[in-house]
Amino acid sequence: MTTSQENGSREVLRLRPTADLRRRQPKTSERIARDIASHIVDNKLAPGTMLPTEREMIESMGVGRTTLREALRLLETRGVLTIKSGPRGGPVVRRPRPSDLSEALTLILEFEQSSLGDVFEARVALEPKLARLAAARISDDAVDQLQASVDAMMGDLVNHDVFLEENQRFHSLIAEVSGNVVLGVFTETLKTVADGALAGVRYTPNRRRAVAAAHQAIVDALRTRDVEAADAAMTRHLDEAGRYWTRKYGELVSDPVRWTH
Amino acid sequence: MTTSQENGSREVLRLRPTADLRRRQPKTSERIARDIASHIVDNKLAPGTMLPTEREMIESMGVGRTTLREALRLLETRGVLTIKSGPRGGPVVRRPRPSDLSEALTLILEFEQSSLGDVFEARVALEPKLARLAAARISDDAVDQLQASVDAMMGDLVNHDVFLEENQRFHSLIAEVSGNVVLGVFTETLKTVADGALAGVRYTPNRRRAVAAAHQAIVDALRTRDVEAADAAMTRHLDEAGRYWTRKYGELVSDPVRWTH
Repeated sequence: MTTSQENGSREVLRLRPTADLRRRQPKTSERIARDIASHIVDNKLAPGTMLPTEREMIESMGVGRTTLREALRLLETRGVLTIKSGPRGGPVVRRPRPSDLSEALTLILEFEQSSLGDVFEARVALEPKLARLAAARISDDAVDQLQASVDAMMGDLVNHDVFLEENQRFHSLIAEVSGNVVLGVFTETLKTVADGALAGVRYTPNRRRAVAAAHQAIVDALRTRDVEAADAAMTRHLDEAGRYWTRKYGELVSDPVRWTH
Repeated sequence: MTTSQENGSREVLRLRPTADLRRRQPKTSERIARDIASHIVDNKLAPGTMLPTEREMIESMGVGRTTLREALRLLETRGVLTIKSGPRGGPVVRRPRPSDLSEALTLILEFEQSSLGDVFEARVALEPKLARLAAARISDDAVDQLQASVDAMMGDLVNHDVFLEENQRFHSLIAEVSGNVVLGVFTETLKTVADGALAGVRYTPNRRRAVAAAHQAIVDALRTRDVEAADAAMTRHLDEAGRYWTRKYGELVSDPVRWTH
């Protein structure tokens, strides 16, 4: 297994622990976990790839069984792999997703006693910026995809699942088009937290029509690559949505977020 | 131990898993982990509080030793507790910190091949918004604290550690004053990632003076509660810093971030 040390000649950015993290030495299992993660990234192992068996890893890495198992479990928690059980089982490569981050974030939000209102406010801060970046970087193809999402939403205002799916897809596409992975991950995380909190809530047909119209205004701004108009249209959309949820479900918005089942 | 079920009468916001998370059923150990986390939050257990012993938890929660240990390890990973070893050891309450999130985020960024440049761009998107919120919400006391940080930085431009510490403190204070926990957590995370990447880099005396002057401009805007001026001063500060790092350390900024030791 390749360790990151062996790549010393590559010009890579090494993250060093900051003061806060430096306080505790990383455990051996954490170092092993990082080695395995680097191995996956360096070798571009696709999701679904089987890693070597436990026995092979113990031999090639020179670590004990307990340490290796702890490392694998840590990587499972972080969404880097799943442990397939059974005789042909073992660690299988996954790709960590923003939803893995949203678990950790939701937990922090619970401890900080923050609310869905905070999450809305953060989305209002982030997504107009994503819309700006998207307006500057969007391809004709991506404009077509966004328009297709709005058309699908407009074309079937009866089916609630179609609405939810297109609502998701629209915001994810803009995050993707923005080209900024960090902001994309944050936005996905907030969407996961907010959608999760509102999972039991039904959008009325009027509400769905309002969302579709707001999305159309955003696509129109993106199509003309108008950075200011894209920012303004996204800001209007999220401000209006925030006001709607606060009016209809005030307590849901102001109560502390909880990390529950 | 209180489970969240027992709080059914409280008006709390329950996060339900979204489609992405729904695919896999949470394992028993995850449910136990959430119960323990809720117990800590509900009972406002302070950091440092000892939780019941393993044996007591096995009895009161009716779970097996392996499951409980997996749950405790998961909570350790998420920063909710530490396992103290030794005869008087056991699980001790911690408070999950943004740095716990930054570990998970850095891992996702590594898999997404994103760069320090993306992190800078995200900070430019987030922190001016924090400055706006701070301008609207700041207390006189917080203005004094920010001014004290600038004074400390200006007063000792020779000591590199003082500079780094005050630089950290200044941005953390603004995140705190903004009153938005979510944006605060994101900003802390980005700061941890960026500072970590730049940990080996020395700021020149001229650079330190420029940072101190930029901080002073931000404090001046916050003191007068001028939302637009605070936004503009923070934007100028981060744009200028981004240009500086790109000019001086271009490869460091454009190379993929790595989650290394």
